Amino acid sequence: MPGSTFGQRFTLTTFGESHGPALGGVVDGMPAGVAIDLERIQHELDRRRPGQSKLTTARNESDRVSLLSGLFEGRTTGTPIGFTIPNADAKPGDYSHNEAHYRPSHADYTYDAKFGVRDHRGGGRASARETAARVVAGALARQFLEQLYPQGPAPQVSAYVERVQDIAMPSPPAFYDRSTVDATDVRCPDPATARRMEERILAVKKAGDTIGGSVVVVAQGVPPGWGEPVFDKLHADLAKALWSLPAVKGLELGSGFSGTLMRGSEHNDAFTSASGSIRTTSNHSGGIQGGISNGEDITLRIGFKPVATILAEQQTVTRDGSASTIAGRGRHDPCVLPRAVPMVEAMVLLVLADHALRQRSARL
Amino acid sequence: MPGSTFGQRFTLTTFGESHGPALGGVVDGMPAGVAIDLERIQHELDRRRPGQSKLTTARNESDRVSLLSGLFEGRTTGTPIGFTIPNADAKPGDYSHNEAHYRPSHADYTYDAKFGVRDHRGGGRASARETAARVVAGALARQFLEQLYPQGPAPQVSAYVERVQDIAMPSPPAFYDRSTVDATDVRCPDPATARRMEERILAVKKAGDTIGGSVVVVAQGVPPGWGEPVFDKLHADLAKALWSLPAVKGLELGSGFSGTLMRGSEHNDAFTSASGSIRTTSNHSGGIQGGISNGEDITLRIGFKPVATILAEQQTVTRDGSASTIAGRGRHDPCVLPRAVPMVEAMVLLVLADHALRQRSARL
Amino acid sequence: MPGSTFGQRFTLTTFGESHGPALGGVVDGMPAGVAIDLERIQHELDRRRPGQSKLTTARNESDRVSLLSGLFEGRTTGTPIGFTIPNADAKPGDYSHNEAHYRPSHADYTYDAKFGVRDHRGGGRASARETAARVVAGALARQFLEQLYPQGPAPQVSAYVERVQDIAMPSPPAFYDRSTVDATDVRCPDPATARRMEERILAVKKAGDTIGGSVVVVAQGVPPGWGEPVFDKLHADLAKALWSLPAVKGLELGSGFSGTLMRGSEHNDAFTSASGSIRTTSNHSGGIQGGISNGEDITLRIGFKPVATILAEQQTVTRDGSASTIAGRGRHDPCVLPRAVPMVEAMVLLVLADHALRQRSARL
Amino acid sequence: MPGSTFGQRFTLTTFGESHGPALGGVVDGMPAGVAIDLERIQHELDRRRPGQSKLTTARNESDRVSLLSGLFEGRTTGTPIGFTIPNADAKPGDYSHNEAHYRPSHADYTYDAKFGVRDHRGGGRASARETAARVVAGALARQFLEQLYPQGPAPQVSAYVERVQDIAMPSPPAFYDRSTVDATDVRCPDPATARRMEERILAVKKAGDTIGGSVVVVAQGVPPGWGEPVFDKLHADLAKALWSLPAVKGLELGSGFSGTLMRGSEHNDAFTSASGSIRTTSNHSGGIQGGISNGEDITLRIGFKPVATILAEQQTVTRDGSASTIAGRGRHDPCVLPRAVPMVEAMVLLVLADHALRQRSARL
Repeated sequence: MPGSTFGQRFTLTTFGESHGPALGGVVDGMPAGVAIDLERIQHELDRRRPGQSKLTTARNESDRVSLLSGLFEGRTTGTPIGFTIPNADAKPGDYSHNEAHYRPSHADYTYDAKFGVRDHRGGGRASARETAARVVAGALARQFLEQLYPQGPAPQVSAYVERVQDIAMPSPPAFYDRSTVDATDVRCPDPATARRMEERILAVKKAGDTIGGSVVVVAQGVPPGWGEPVFDKLHADLAKALWSLPAVKGLELGSGFSGTLMRGSEHNDAFTSASGSIRTTSNHSGGIQGGISNGEDITLRIGFKPVATILAEQQTVTRDGSASTIAGRGRHDPCVLPRAVPMVEAMVLLVLADHALRQRSARL
Repeated sequence: MPGSTFGQRFTLTTFGESHGPALGGVVDGMPAGVAIDLERIQHELDRRRPGQSKLTTARNESDRVSLLSGLFEGRTTGTPIGFTIPNADAKPGDYSHNEAHYRPSHADYTYDAKFGVRDHRGGGRASARETAARVVAGALARQFLEQLYPQGPAPQVSAYVERVQDIAMPSPPAFYDRSTVDATDVRCPDPATARRMEERILAVKKAGDTIGGSVVVVAQGVPPGWGEPVFDKLHADLAKALWSLPAVKGLELGSGFSGTLMRGSEHNDAFTSASGSIRTTSNHSGGIQGGISNGEDITLRIGFKPVATILAEQQTVTRDGSASTIAGRGRHDPCVLPRAVPMVEAMVLLVLADHALRQRSARL
Repeated sequence: MPGSTFGQRFTLTTFGESHGPALGGVVDGMPAGVAIDLERIQHELDRRRPGQSKLTTARNESDRVSLLSGLFEGRTTGTPIGFTIPNADAKPGDYSHNEAHYRPSHADYTYDAKFGVRDHRGGGRASARETAARVVAGALARQFLEQLYPQGPAPQVSAYVERVQDIAMPSPPAFYDRSTVDATDVRCPDPATARRMEERILAVKKAGDTIGGSVVVVAQGVPPGWGEPVFDKLHADLAKALWSLPAVKGLELGSGFSGTLMRGSEHNDAFTSASGSIRTTSNHSGGIQGGISNGEDITLRIGFKPVATILAEQQTVTRDGSASTIAGRGRHDPCVLPRAVPMVEAMVLLVLADHALRQRSARL
Repeated sequence: MPGSTFGQRFTLTTFGESHGPALGGVVDGMPAGVAIDLERIQHELDRRRPGQSKLTTARNESDRVSLLSGLFEGRTTGTPIGFTIPNADAKPGDYSHNEAHYRPSHADYTYDAKFGVRDHRGGGRASARETAARVVAGALARQFLEQLYPQGPAPQVSAYVERVQDIAMPSPPAFYDRSTVDATDVRCPDPATARRMEERILAVKKAGDTIGGSVVVVAQGVPPGWGEPVFDKLHADLAKALWSLPAVKGLELGSGFSGTLMRGSEHNDAFTSASGSIRTTSNHSGGIQGGISNGEDITLRIGFKPVATILAEQQTVTRDGSASTIAGRGRHDPCVLPRAVPMVEAMVLLVLADHALRQRSARL
């Protein structure tokens, strides 16, 4: 497959540029019989949408999604779900100066190197706007996962901003209710830290600069047994999913890099048996052993770089290789992290939905 | 595809358990006309092979590979290359105590949870022995990449041990010649650091314990334009490839987590034009922008946890959930990193070979 | 992948039900730099569209396609091309009697058996209306193939109705210019046979019954070397493509079933060398040998059954298994063949575009 | 994927040339817990093996398969099953005259056109010898399908020779027990017809010529609901599977081409309800409606051309385009059909095993 499709059994194919008429996608492999709440899909898009708070880009997109197929009388039919999201506030004129100049640390040069041509309106396909389609698909995956075990607890996925630049939550990664996360604009569940983060972001915005940080995502209630040996380990697929988001620079699972400082005798997670189910007494493994979920929380930390679009003048070259300078003029985010939260959740949900279905082939 | 195949156009399918009759694989998509040096394939296997130095497991495997197809008169024919590697020193008897007990931080419990059955001889399919097949395929990919540009410089991939527990090289990630890397048993290109690492590993081995650390891999000479927008970004595929190796806990690209502390104005890589080619004056991007290579060094850091098999007695449960204890008896490595170096290179080579072929579809 | 995606390097993913708001799809893998003539895409849709002549269903769909992405200044950019086709003349009310009854030789029962739920409005996803998206993609593939060899002859694909029920063209399969094919409503390039076919179709329509027949498709100018050994033989992929169309009952390549009556000494196609290029003196092989094109015309014959919707009352059962009867009331075609011509061409074009790109990986 | 892998969830990857050291393959996606009878795998290979009767090639291969992984204590573990089949009676010297000459209606020319190089020893990868690996995989798929419904009837697949040149069975396609089929060397279940077929084959063999014919395959006991809408219709995947076998020229499903002569009112299969299950009173559909199985017999007819290798001198060209002649000298079959029976069954079994697993994703 070319690179616009993700997943094997629960798949998402996306299309759309930042300033074309619409974005959209196709979710295929959704099982029949899942009740779909359209409001909840829109709610996830609203969490990702630009212009949602003073911390984000001023681009004003209502991001109204239309589902075009695969639903009948409120339930999925097992056939593909096509959808579109119009680009309402596209301003291609804003970006005409991009045609000749390669913006530093953007994808302008590499797209030209690859394709010999480039839709230079606002980043085209390389714009983070593309992730809106992922959020729709993630919201569909979430509803599937919630209904997967009518008798038992559903797999839950929740992400939050753990750190903005050097301002970090004082507590280790944990599962936070999503309403707690959404209580602050910056989506950090610790109010005191959130306040400091927001001040920093606004100061950086005022300076025309940008900052990054880290997001933590936790998947709770994933049953033991999801993931495949060898290449399609659950965390290998999660890694691909998360690294496919824009601006990712680092990823950690469970104990992460700090775990690489420990001895085996400290790092190993001892097994114990509690009320009939096998658990571990610590979770350095991050919920995955040998590539397969063990029932503990799946905990990942994703590092995002500062957004590349800044207002200061920067050294660059033009398409023909002449030295030049460029300064940001389009609308952009001073810090991508608050809006990255629903993107991160969406990618984790897509991987889990896919492996939920793949797991059905494991046994006779 | 089930989880034993990697890649899209240059693919590897593997099979084999730690203590079955043989491991093996099939490389498909290798273009016709590549001259293959069998000695160099064996040399890569020798770098991965157990028993190669006092730092590794005592299991003694000669790891002789037989190529069964796809070659004719010393060149590839475009048809699949099947190969086998016999398990010569398998000692299934060593592992009989594994049947009932779940070894902490191994894949015993999760395989049982997934499949309801498990080949408990030495980790079965979950054993790192499985990576031998990847090394064969990586060695084939390397020879393909070396011959890809008869007129120009070839993409080169080299990895090394940067850190063992807290003993780290003092210099930032860089490309080292592989012969320099192989000059020490621990595969650290800085001799002074290497000596300290080796002492630490031997001390830990004596204590029956294990340690981890980090490996750096650099791909040099990758032309601009490899990688796909959106899901199959070059670093997303690299992330999946590397996270599919056993024991990985963290991954960084370019500036990594430390880059997430910078401002955009510091982090952006300015473009410059040097002797006709477009370059960047810094490389925080790690050679990839928007998911597509930009011609700079692709630099990744992989964190490996301490090996799970230790000699100390550990708390665990049996298959039926009863509390028990277990202590390591099989042969194992005190530190996986020296042997991880060829594994890491193999996975990066497989991704590059795949994207070298995928790139051929980019333009009319 | 679930079943809504076709192809490997040049792919089509489709969505949409017969009476939902819209059909659509995503073409991914289209190389950058192809000039796209939107009128020609619409022209192909018009060839497939219902209501185009008195021989077809009375459903009146203008089938206006909107391309939403992947194009910039008239050329492809290498990114996915999303598109939608609104359902304008959907009349779900027409089909309410389908809810309980299984229409004979339709997909009602099997969809229920598979999914446990069914969009019963006009066949839902099983309606031939779904093929509109294929025709869009085929039209894009055609323009890619036409521009593939700027210096030489382009691969051309042309289909026609060879036989309606027992009324067949007197001449063997051959390549006909598409304008010749379109000169008659029934799309048979022999005017005398076309007249008899049209009379038969109108008589059958009057009787409330339906008939089938055969379509021949010829791909001319495909260079030697397309197709893969073993599973992805060029004709295996063509077979899958064509059998994925509704109502197909038989397929022949080259000499077809009549070739199975010959001796090898008669059937073999002798090689000859004409003006520097290697050709065959006969073409029983149908342009493909060992699964790979040999440069001769690729000739296929596809048999289509009579349309299942008839006006006569038929014996059936309801969803709960009670005996019942049903008679057609929705709008339908007395003979699908004239409209099958663009569908057949589209599927052949998709396979050729895919293998054109796959072939680029064959050699170092 | 390159062309050496078949299937999506139950997959086969093959490798090997006619005169290399070995053929082999990897079956991946086999669920855990299937009891495997190795003798039955070997039995299927024996049905395909050359030299099994006077009707087949004199090449003498014992075709002993070694299973190298994925089995533990007699059952599948859910991990890939690798296997090899040594080439024991390879005689590369026999084929040296093939290097320069293109054998008519073989794949010599097209392989050269594709790859620029060719393993010219006995057809290399294009030899029907490659199908041995398929037969192993089909035998594994058969055992999986037999154990799929411990309580109910298992899907059964049986093929037979229906016609050799113009000598055909007088009765319509039906399910025959495989022991009945194997009662004659030619694998025709009608003894009188079988005798005439065998005489014809021996006469043609004596004349140094070859003949073709048709094989019928019936899958009985496939439950309703297997197959996917649109592109991966069950019969589309069966078509690809069967057309990937060497020498196929035609394929029919159910009523086939003769069904295209009927009216809809004759061709439709009326539904009826018998003892609680929904059935059809006729089976022109061939067990598949809308691409999904309906529980009736799946009936396919495959036409095979006469084998291309004949003893008579034929006109051809050499690699450099010079006119020349060639006469067959290697060992070959006068009629491929008796040995095609197990190949056909294997491909149908692989498709059914794949869709058995895919069906598990259809519903919440």
